[in-house]
Amino acid sequence: MNTQDHISQEYNEELEALRSKALTMGGLVEENFTGATKSLLKGKTQLAQHIAKEDYKVNALEVSLDEDCSSLIARRQPAAIDLRNIFAVLKIVTDLERIGDESEKIARFAAELDNDATSMKFYSSLKSLIISAREILSSALDCYARLDADKAMEVVQLDSGVDSEFMNLNRTLTTYLLEDIKNIEDTIKVMWCARSIERVGDHAKNICEYVVYVVHGNDIRHITDEEAE
Amino acid sequence: MNTQDHISQEYNEELEALRSKALTMGGLVEENFTGATKSLLKGKTQLAQHIAKEDYKVNALEVSLDEDCSSLIARRQPAAIDLRNIFAVLKIVTDLERIGDESEKIARFAAELDNDATSMKFYSSLKSLIISAREILSSALDCYARLDADKAMEVVQLDSGVDSEFMNLNRTLTTYLLEDIKNIEDTIKVMWCARSIERVGDHAKNICEYVVYVVHGNDIRHITDEEAE
Repeated sequence: MNTQDHISQEYNEELEALRSKALTMGGLVEENFTGATKSLLKGKTQLAQHIAKEDYKVNALEVSLDEDCSSLIARRQPAAIDLRNIFAVLKIVTDLERIGDESEKIARFAAELDNDATSMKFYSSLKSLIISAREILSSALDCYARLDADKAMEVVQLDSGVDSEFMNLNRTLTTYLLEDIKNIEDTIKVMWCARSIERVGDHAKNICEYVVYVVHGNDIRHITDEEAE
Repeated sequence: MNTQDHISQEYNEELEALRSKALTMGGLVEENFTGATKSLLKGKTQLAQHIAKEDYKVNALEVSLDEDCSSLIARRQPAAIDLRNIFAVLKIVTDLERIGDESEKIARFAAELDNDATSMKFYSSLKSLIISAREILSSALDCYARLDADKAMEVVQLDSGVDSEFMNLNRTLTTYLLEDIKNIEDTIKVMWCARSIERVGDHAKNICEYVVYVVHGNDIRHITDEEAE
């Protein structure tokens, strides 16, 4: 192997290590979101308190990944697909960090709830929203792991489903507030959680859009916004 | 002027044009946020409808600025402070785009409100939160325009004030829901708006953190999170 091949192999390994670290961050964020929503659904206060404390790990990975991107660009002067790969990491870590923040918020509210969500009338709608959001996040990370742009385009479409489930749940919660004023504080906490869950869907959609950008080089952000509303 | 100087001057001009375009986006976003919150406070439905339709301009600037960054990196192979400048643009446009989204949400809710916010009991708290958020956004953009890292460090501290104003308003709104159940839908819309306004404070804080990163090269994100909570 000549020096040029050696450098090129090292470079590829660095790029792969970067993507792999972003996927590790994705795995951690997914775990926290699953834990936070589980604690919300099942009233698991201890789990909620644990998740609320875990976000610093996500934040540390964000800072470290941004540094890795910066160092790679400065040392390797990437172009074309390599540069797109690095750009995608820079953008995806921002979305992952925000999903981490939303999971932390959900966990904090879950820990504060006086009543078990299972006893609430809107439990099944909440559960359904959570399952949809988990599915879109998991699929988005899967698309990124496989760099599957076709699947990513399909997953982007799922976000409007999450949005309409959120709007329906929101209407149900408003009606519930009118009927059962004594549980008002808990109901509002569930509303904030529902909003956070809906935001996770948005971030998962963004991740899919970056997958398309890496693979095809075209930026599809905001093109599908009108349909999704 | 020799060829090297010429290339170097062109390069500097490109970097300055990039920052200037990011500032144009910042100006537009600030204008939309001011308009959206004004329509919320004063019940200006037409202004609200106008703002809600303006977000596509912000989105287009985001996509265009990301392209500019990518093209600059590929052609100029920047290092050190030049690379940090480009990185900051990449990150700042994401925050600006999100502020645009929040402004659009506020405008949509403002257009839907049945009652004029001025008639609401919590009007003064809402106004105070809006003034604080406008101030932090305006200061953050000013710090970026001047690349003033010292001022940026001060502005970062202001975000915890916005957060606590939001929490107080949220408590007031919850009490208000209990007292005046017939206005429940409007009160919840104001809650969502308050949340969006609080998020604008977070994004402004992020912008300040990137200013410090450009000037000093150190990443201060998440360091101040614990204090701010």
